[in-house]
Amino acid sequence: MEELHSLFYFLELAGTFAFAISGATAARRRNLDIFGICAIAFVVACGGGIIRDVCIGAIPPAGLTNWQYLVVALIAAALTIHFYPLVQRLNRPVLFFDAIGLSLFAVTGAEKALHYGHNGEVAVLLGITTAVGGGVIRDILLNRVPVILEKEIYALAALIGAIIVVSGHYVDWISTDWVAIVALSVCFTLRILALHYHWNLPVPGNNKTDSTE
Amino acid sequence: MEELHSLFYFLELAGTFAFAISGATAARRRNLDIFGICAIAFVVACGGGIIRDVCIGAIPPAGLTNWQYLVVALIAAALTIHFYPLVQRLNRPVLFFDAIGLSLFAVTGAEKALHYGHNGEVAVLLGITTAVGGGVIRDILLNRVPVILEKEIYALAALIGAIIVVSGHYVDWISTDWVAIVALSVCFTLRILALHYHWNLPVPGNNKTDSTE
Amino acid sequence: MEELHSLFYFLELAGTFAFAISGATAARRRNLDIFGICAIAFVVACGGGIIRDVCIGAIPPAGLTNWQYLVVALIAAALTIHFYPLVQRLNRPVLFFDAIGLSLFAVTGAEKALHYGHNGEVAVLLGITTAVGGGVIRDILLNRVPVILEKEIYALAALIGAIIVVSGHYVDWISTDWVAIVALSVCFTLRILALHYHWNLPVPGNNKTDSTE
Repeated sequence: MEELHSLFYFLELAGTFAFAISGATAARRRNLDIFGICAIAFVVACGGGIIRDVCIGAIPPAGLTNWQYLVVALIAAALTIHFYPLVQRLNRPVLFFDAIGLSLFAVTGAEKALHYGHNGEVAVLLGITTAVGGGVIRDILLNRVPVILEKEIYALAALIGAIIVVSGHYVDWISTDWVAIVALSVCFTLRILALHYHWNLPVPGNNKTDSTE
Repeated sequence: MEELHSLFYFLELAGTFAFAISGATAARRRNLDIFGICAIAFVVACGGGIIRDVCIGAIPPAGLTNWQYLVVALIAAALTIHFYPLVQRLNRPVLFFDAIGLSLFAVTGAEKALHYGHNGEVAVLLGITTAVGGGVIRDILLNRVPVILEKEIYALAALIGAIIVVSGHYVDWISTDWVAIVALSVCFTLRILALHYHWNLPVPGNNKTDSTE
Repeated sequence: MEELHSLFYFLELAGTFAFAISGATAARRRNLDIFGICAIAFVVACGGGIIRDVCIGAIPPAGLTNWQYLVVALIAAALTIHFYPLVQRLNRPVLFFDAIGLSLFAVTGAEKALHYGHNGEVAVLLGITTAVGGGVIRDILLNRVPVILEKEIYALAALIGAIIVVSGHYVDWISTDWVAIVALSVCFTLRILALHYHWNLPVPGNNKTDSTE
């Protein structure tokens, strides 16, 4: 299963890259300066994991100690700054890798919480947080309501992935690796289907005129 | 004093419920989807306590490990989604329980910080944070200036409750339970009076035209 | 070098004061009530350090335990509330002390992370966080895109200061105090020059019309 972990590692960097690209493009669209673009790329890529690590007591957070994440985020920011039209045309592959990042972060986030000895609820909640936390901070910094709270089946896919990881953890006779593969596949498939068919969660009372503050 | 702790426990869940209702209704008014409504209900109910626990080293935070809080928050979200007109009519009882939640969270937040061996300043600051932190995160996520910074005697009531807890802690001959009851009563009464008489803190320079950014 | 540390301590309180003034004036301009002004003054002064301490495991955060910071922040808030025209006229000295605060917080933040045994990347990232974190939280609470992401050479100066501290840490034959003085001077000079000559970082694509969301 050594190759599997190498694969996971490669996918995690690819997911980090996709998250960083999504941050950098959003920052560029808002006319932030180059520091702002780099900062938001890094925060989207590592923010969720940093919150998870602070909550499970993994000090210092991996996002701050592993230079690979920082370098990947800065490369994504540099590409977005210098080849913006190209990055915009890469929209579809970026969404693809973003779905990979979402799935991997949800799965590895939940696994890390379990690994630190915390219970299933902590693992599920922090699995989602790892997956969507960076994007939420991005939207807070760019001064808008986080898109995952408004539409798209995004956090729900992460939730289901994290629940599968935790369920598998309590069923001893399945190996952790197989559980991770199933959780990843389900989360990733759900996200891709949601993108393709424009699935959204229901918005209660959407047909009424209660949208005023 | 066993009954007192049962009572506190019941009141804490009631306060959690009220906080979650306030989050869910605000989220619904902003047309968030059902995931967004559940997420904001949970964050308002548990966010302040999570920040407190991270700051005092209570890892993992109680809001992430105790399923009762999550379940209460999700019930509040489900009620808000399905019975919104009813929940809106429940405005007055919700404000009542919200005041209970505010008082209890301020008192138990300050007590927990003291219990972990931190000093009075930490206890007061984290008592307020426990009480108002969730509401501040709600307003940040909904992209508005936190209401507690703009008006209403809300955080001030929590501050006074937390100060009473800390003062009582340094006066040995009063039992912790009595201190808690006094702190709770003062905080709750102040908040209810502020609601009833529309007390606000002064806004400096409000009569001048310096409100432009 | 005892006097140097007394000097650092005085400068740190001066920087805290300048940060708190910047928070209080921004809060007052937004018509927050007196609690909101005090809260934002405190958060700007101590927020960055609190995030740093949580990330390096310095529990409880110094910003919550040392009453000096709280008192300095409340004095700054009180001055801003009562002598607002005076504080506005103090704009230049406040910018001067803000630059001192920026430099000191970047340097001491990086040093504290190294002192807790973390690596250079953690020290650089948390040095910047200490220096600019409070200002970012201020802007989030006041519901606007953090100014440091949009313009001004501010975080960049902190970044360079933190990098000098970390570089000096790996060069054994230079004393920590000398490294700190050099890092401080470079960061401070860069910030003052940027203020004087209105240096900004480039904003990619600024001449195009892609600023719409």
